[in-house]
Amino acid sequence: MIQERLAALRSRMKEEHVDAYLVPTDDFHCSEYVGDYFKCRKYITGFTGSAGTAVITMDEAGLWTDGRYFIQAANQLEGTTVTLYKMGEEGVPTIEEYLLNTLKPGQCLGFDGRTMTAAGGEELEKKLAEKQVSLSFQMDLVGDIWQDRPPLSCSPVWELDLKYAGKPRSEKLTQIRKAMAEQKADYFLLTSLEDIAWLLNIRGGDIACTPVVLSYLVMTQSKVLLFAQQEAFSEELKKELSREGVTLQPYNDIYSFAASIPAGKRVLLDPACANYALKKSIPEQAAVVSAPNPTRLPKAVKNPVEVANMKKAHIRDGVAVTRWIYWLKQNVGKTEITEISAAAKLEEFRCAQEDYLGPSFDPIVSWGHHAALPHYSATPETDIPVQPRSFLLADTGGHYRQGSTDITRTIVMGETSQKEKEYFTRVLRANLNLAAAKFLYGCSGKNLDYIAREPLWEIGEDYNHGTGHGIGYLLSVHEGPNEFRWKSRPSRPDAAVFEEGMITTDEPGYYVEGEFGIRHENVMVCRKAEKTACGQFMEFETITMVPFDLEAVIPEMLSPRERELLNRYHQTVYEKISPFLEGEEKEWLKEATRKI
Amino acid sequence: MIQERLAALRSRMKEEHVDAYLVPTDDFHCSEYVGDYFKCRKYITGFTGSAGTAVITMDEAGLWTDGRYFIQAANQLEGTTVTLYKMGEEGVPTIEEYLLNTLKPGQCLGFDGRTMTAAGGEELEKKLAEKQVSLSFQMDLVGDIWQDRPPLSCSPVWELDLKYAGKPRSEKLTQIRKAMAEQKADYFLLTSLEDIAWLLNIRGGDIACTPVVLSYLVMTQSKVLLFAQQEAFSEELKKELSREGVTLQPYNDIYSFAASIPAGKRVLLDPACANYALKKSIPEQAAVVSAPNPTRLPKAVKNPVEVANMKKAHIRDGVAVTRWIYWLKQNVGKTEITEISAAAKLEEFRCAQEDYLGPSFDPIVSWGHHAALPHYSATPETDIPVQPRSFLLADTGGHYRQGSTDITRTIVMGETSQKEKEYFTRVLRANLNLAAAKFLYGCSGKNLDYIAREPLWEIGEDYNHGTGHGIGYLLSVHEGPNEFRWKSRPSRPDAAVFEEGMITTDEPGYYVEGEFGIRHENVMVCRKAEKTACGQFMEFETITMVPFDLEAVIPEMLSPRERELLNRYHQTVYEKISPFLEGEEKEWLKEATRKI
Repeated sequence: MIQERLAALRSRMKEEHVDAYLVPTDDFHCSEYVGDYFKCRKYITGFTGSAGTAVITMDEAGLWTDGRYFIQAANQLEGTTVTLYKMGEEGVPTIEEYLLNTLKPGQCLGFDGRTMTAAGGEELEKKLAEKQVSLSFQMDLVGDIWQDRPPLSCSPVWELDLKYAGKPRSEKLTQIRKAMAEQKADYFLLTSLEDIAWLLNIRGGDIACTPVVLSYLVMTQSKVLLFAQQEAFSEELKKELSREGVTLQPYNDIYSFAASIPAGKRVLLDPACANYALKKSIPEQAAVVSAPNPTRLPKAVKNPVEVANMKKAHIRDGVAVTRWIYWLKQNVGKTEITEISAAAKLEEFRCAQEDYLGPSFDPIVSWGHHAALPHYSATPETDIPVQPRSFLLADTGGHYRQGSTDITRTIVMGETSQKEKEYFTRVLRANLNLAAAKFLYGCSGKNLDYIAREPLWEIGEDYNHGTGHGIGYLLSVHEGPNEFRWKSRPSRPDAAVFEEGMITTDEPGYYVEGEFGIRHENVMVCRKAEKTACGQFMEFETITMVPFDLEAVIPEMLSPRERELLNRYHQTVYEKISPFLEGEEKEWLKEATRKI
Repeated sequence: MIQERLAALRSRMKEEHVDAYLVPTDDFHCSEYVGDYFKCRKYITGFTGSAGTAVITMDEAGLWTDGRYFIQAANQLEGTTVTLYKMGEEGVPTIEEYLLNTLKPGQCLGFDGRTMTAAGGEELEKKLAEKQVSLSFQMDLVGDIWQDRPPLSCSPVWELDLKYAGKPRSEKLTQIRKAMAEQKADYFLLTSLEDIAWLLNIRGGDIACTPVVLSYLVMTQSKVLLFAQQEAFSEELKKELSREGVTLQPYNDIYSFAASIPAGKRVLLDPACANYALKKSIPEQAAVVSAPNPTRLPKAVKNPVEVANMKKAHIRDGVAVTRWIYWLKQNVGKTEITEISAAAKLEEFRCAQEDYLGPSFDPIVSWGHHAALPHYSATPETDIPVQPRSFLLADTGGHYRQGSTDITRTIVMGETSQKEKEYFTRVLRANLNLAAAKFLYGCSGKNLDYIAREPLWEIGEDYNHGTGHGIGYLLSVHEGPNEFRWKSRPSRPDAAVFEEGMITTDEPGYYVEGEFGIRHENVMVCRKAEKTACGQFMEFETITMVPFDLEAVIPEMLSPRERELLNRYHQTVYEKISPFLEGEEKEWLKEATRKI
């Protein structure tokens, strides 16, 4: 089947005089998850992973993906004639190197310019120009041959009430217009779906786990044009939006609109989010102001209403997760439980909570050695029974009208080894110490990440992922610019300075391949501590309310301060969660949050 | 006297059609200290501080300086008609703001373009151009009116033997030529004196506390031109240099040389070090490649011979400082000791050490409330007696043939308060914990600075300076790019990644205005720790060998680990230093390094 699709694609390539065709994973908005309509790379290679890029030439086809997917991709590519390129492995060319080696001067690389960032496309353009290879980006050749392509998602758009959003869209528009004026920008092109949803206080359902609306937005000092599917909006909401000067336009018209921007105008866009085709649509006589979206920071700095709501959401979520942990402990070894059925059971507990809307990401519920793979998410093929020993690692989250959650607990399923307990305790120290940081205003996650690494670094160990990320309010569960990360990454800005109201995860871990995995994740709000002659001090307030499993804690490994931090946290968990529990569940929570 | 000088300057300004004249503190090489020849700002204002900038117009004269010098400047400017502008105080214009407010379109700002960095000059040029103010920078008007100006220093140049330098200049030249080739640079203009001295393994005495040679250097792939004062070189050294292709040229000829660079050539220079006039001398048809000096990193990463030598220097210095502390403790309250006489006594002890060459910076020896001023350096006017109570803070250092030292000890002179002891202990925790850091390769001082801040931040306190700086090998005692600093500074790169062989100070402090000051400073070499599956771990080795004053340590405030770190350090100090002491001094050291 894949071979036939490749043959059809190659004949389209011939018609368009394209010598190589590149198929990224992105939608037109650089979203983290993409809707079914956008899964061209999956269609043309058969590989279903969440990250990967395909390149097809007249006689070769290749798929590039990272370490998380080597095994899955190898299986799925079997018999397709598509070669797997394992990114980061020695001797494996990058996509760019492959293109530079394969394409000859005068040849042409085709791709759909809407599926690549402006920054990425321009980088590619520059590199290939050195070899006199041209780009042809106004095409969707996989789309052309995809007969039964799913339609664009068109979920109903709904308004996020002021009691949840905390700030009317008129105020947000004023704030962004001020930022535009500072940049002397006549137009602001906003294409990232989370930013549009935040700005207009609207939500939708066009992307799995991310309640956003497929759309583009253009702002001037007087107007807002929202390019979206009209059918998704109720008449009432249309009227509501139009009262604030927001006019609906057909989704795809953004490109002709951009092309019509008058010469001499200044157009603000974020080349890390806006797609290449859109940027290319802007006439050369207009000036593009490349800067991070001015929505980025106000979206990350949650307002007091959002913070108060997020705390409520975390209590509801805490009740669901706590009940689930109790259920697991009662039933493991007695009932048949698998990774997938355990996740389904947790979803049941969440569904029982008021205002629950759905998962905020695909749940990671992994037992034993599976937990050693930080990005493992069980499929029917990989699903295994949860046995009454070792750890079950559960990294899951939900969307509530009051906000979004992201929590990881490592749960003792029965007998655990001394080694498992020791690392469990070390990672707990990492989590507790980071949460207890007090620091002068001006610090970023780059300054503080060491606190979480220290318990592992002191013994020459580490975890190979960031320590924490920002969280959206009923948007993407991964949101910048706040994060905990010690290392700089090329071409990406370092973690942002912590502002009051930023919400960030605290999730150190430890993984032993083939044996077990540990991660302890809480969500924290940044708030002001005391202001002294030295300046404004800042601190975190943990809002996740679920006990850490004391069965795997070695109290002697905790310092007196760490023990106090743990006890204080558990006391708060009991106070917040126990009112929603009864009988044995409540009894169990009392025990699970006991002072050690 | 100052008024007469200002009048003479203004008449020169009139002749040159200059409406305002700016006098920075820099020499032609952006050195931290400058020779007497370069002290134009002092000549024209009377202000002797190490930092400050004067601006003279036809009817006003102003001096800008920072908080360290407000009192001193106010005194020295009295009766001069020069107005003091306190930098950083609310309502005080910056120099740039002052110039923009004062100068009218069509007017001209004059300055000696050799005394400003290329980056600084270009910034000024851009800002003033917006107001149609022109720059005239090929002049030295203060020099013109300075009748008894001291001559340029011309100290004899000497060669740093390979047994000290560790790497022949031929190897260093090859290394830098490789970096030039990577940048496709035909010429490399090197103007920072420490870098030239490092590259050629030469030392001199043209700048106080910094044994360097007034010079500029130009490299191509085949030649090295050293623009310096011929008289400073012996015939033997000239021959030695010429064997490696290094040709001497008159010091001031660098400007005509730069002007003669052929069109189309690429010229590498560091706009943060090279002066504005030099950059302006390069023809526009040549391409300037602006990048940090490629000498910067290899100079900072000390080679194994340099590291071994530095350890020897620190033992010699440790013996001198330890003997001095013993002397202080024996004599305080019995003999008349002042801040200045105490510093002189320390210099005596250092002079008694083999291969001692002189101080590596002006000593800071301050008693009681004077120690609360981190940059205080006693003058005959401010000198006070050292009384038998509170702390004496001594931040001093020496140059030895084996390298340079920088050490701060806070020494108990008699009765101390509980508050003094508590802060003494907190700052000691900061010092010990930072020195004990273990971290993955890739960390910089920005990642680690929190460790030293934590004991103060946890109680809402701080110290208002960096936690540590790199140290040159018989060069400047302040050397980049390694440092400990949590905060980013505009237009300056963040702290560099720690490499094996980098040498950095660890100097947290605490200051209570009007009461006391504490600083504990050790020098540490970065070295490799274990390499594990997680990567290469790094750690520090402390090489300063002088006890911390146990009389002010509150053992109960130290964690078991901190106590162990202190005891281990003191044990090493005793092992390294006691062989050089005898009798009572040795007995005292035994007691001063006792286990607590």
